Amino acid sequence: MGRWEPGARERLQGAALSLYSGKGFEVTTVAEIAQVAGLTERTFYRYFADKREVLFAIYDEFTRPFLDGIEGAPQGARPMEIMAAAVATASEFFTVDRQPYSRTRQSVIMANPELHERELLKLASLAATLATALRERGVKQTAATLAAEMGVTVYRVSFELWIADGETRPMAEIASGVFAELGVLTGPA
Amino acid sequence: MGRWEPGARERLQGAALSLYSGKGFEVTTVAEIAQVAGLTERTFYRYFADKREVLFAIYDEFTRPFLDGIEGAPQGARPMEIMAAAVATASEFFTVDRQPYSRTRQSVIMANPELHERELLKLASLAATLATALRERGVKQTAATLAAEMGVTVYRVSFELWIADGETRPMAEIASGVFAELGVLTGPA
Repeated sequence: MGRWEPGARERLQGAALSLYSGKGFEVTTVAEIAQVAGLTERTFYRYFADKREVLFAIYDEFTRPFLDGIEGAPQGARPMEIMAAAVATASEFFTVDRQPYSRTRQSVIMANPELHERELLKLASLAATLATALRERGVKQTAATLAAEMGVTVYRVSFELWIADGETRPMAEIASGVFAELGVLTGPA
Repeated sequence: MGRWEPGARERLQGAALSLYSGKGFEVTTVAEIAQVAGLTERTFYRYFADKREVLFAIYDEFTRPFLDGIEGAPQGARPMEIMAAAVATASEFFTVDRQPYSRTRQSVIMANPELHERELLKLASLAATLATALRERGVKQTAATLAAEMGVTVYRVSFELWIADGETRPMAEIASGVFAELGVLTGPA
């Protein structure tokens, strides 16, 4: 088997999720994942450090759209407007064909405290990265931290609404509604 | 050694933190913690499931003040006002004599990804508990989740400011300022 396998990464991610969802995360081995994907264990380890990381490689892809949104927001935009732009850009990642994968991934993660912890660490790391990007745009430290944390919270709440049964609105529309709700909650009485 | 040791819990927490901070979390054993505290390993396990949990037992104590704040907020208070009351009540837990312990605990936790993950899981669980308490007061689900998450974020940002070198303001005062900053951030331009 050569060093380059077309679509190997995605095949491994799909195989891992099927096994975690079917027989369970704890009892699934890397050998089984590789077998289901029609690849070798060696190929698995070329893409992922371990069987936990295969579920979190997604953060490597979708941190970039958040940052693009921050960098692309107009000069003079306020911190929460910048975060709304970041979440809107990142929402494009969640196309309707990703919904089944996203639903299954979420249920696997929530069923396992070790995976849930790792997810929270990745989200905290995402918030820290976005806070740094806001500071680079001149936002002061506490404001940058608060805005980044709120942006990630809005993203997370929106994501949970998006994967709910029967939900058909695009992620960007849901997120826009959640930002509006946040404004009402924290606004004057 | 009898079943009851006065202050055993606090002595074990203090001994564990000293060892984690001095020689490191990974290499410290439960036997060493018990020895430094002048207690037996058996006594340790009467209080804590493992050497990680000894750092997180604090959540059992301080979830209650948050809930007291929610339950004690006046009828008709808006969700963010209820959360401000919750954080104010919880702030009383962080008296000035706790500052050194809190600083050391934070540096131990941030130095170890496994501990950082556990801390994030505890904070997520705290936010979920507070969201449930808000819903019991009639706040709708998404608003309850957002308000609880923002309250915990304000608490966390305030805590980090409170333990900073040279900070002398009480936690409640810091938290009140962070809530005000949140209002400005999310308010109209």
